[in-house]
Amino acid sequence: MDQFEVQVFIRLRPSVLDPAGEAIKSASSKLGVEGIKSLRIGKMIEVKIDGNKEDEIKEQIDLLCNRLFANTVIEDYEYSIKKL
Amino acid sequence: MDQFEVQVFIRLRPSVLDPAGEAIKSASSKLGVEGIKSLRIGKMIEVKIDGNKEDEIKEQIDLLCNRLFANTVIEDYEYSIKKL
Repeated sequence: MDQFEVQVFIRLRPSVLDPAGEAIKSASSKLGVEGIKSLRIGKMIEVKIDGNKEDEIKEQIDLLCNRLFANTVIEDYEYSIKKL
Repeated sequence: MDQFEVQVFIRLRPSVLDPAGEAIKSASSKLGVEGIKSLRIGKMIEVKIDGNKEDEIKEQIDLLCNRLFANTVIEDYEYSIKKL
């Protein structure tokens, strides 16, 4: 059995407003950083998981993303898998 | 003036407990995903920013990470900058 490291990135869909991101964007300009055109906040979930095959891990991560990690109505996810 | 895309990753320091991550980890096993050895939740902030030089962008992003994005007492950050 091998160990895999999975990085999952969860982003609000482009059409969904991100009020927290907007708040940080305006706070940035108060700190003197003026050039910001867009700022969006997402989530990153890092998983270490045991398994036999990468395909099997993919299946499990897709299940977790759809059922647990992301709200697929308003969020998109992507992930990368690295064998350790 | 160029536009840069910055991806900032903010993680809890390894010594800091992540109760939300632990909760998702145990929910995962209830969904039938048994092999998870560790699960940590972090933040990702994606910024589009105008500037002249990558060094200047780095300076601004370091400022924002230290003052605004991360709580450096309990969190570490890293980022990557891509010129668009």
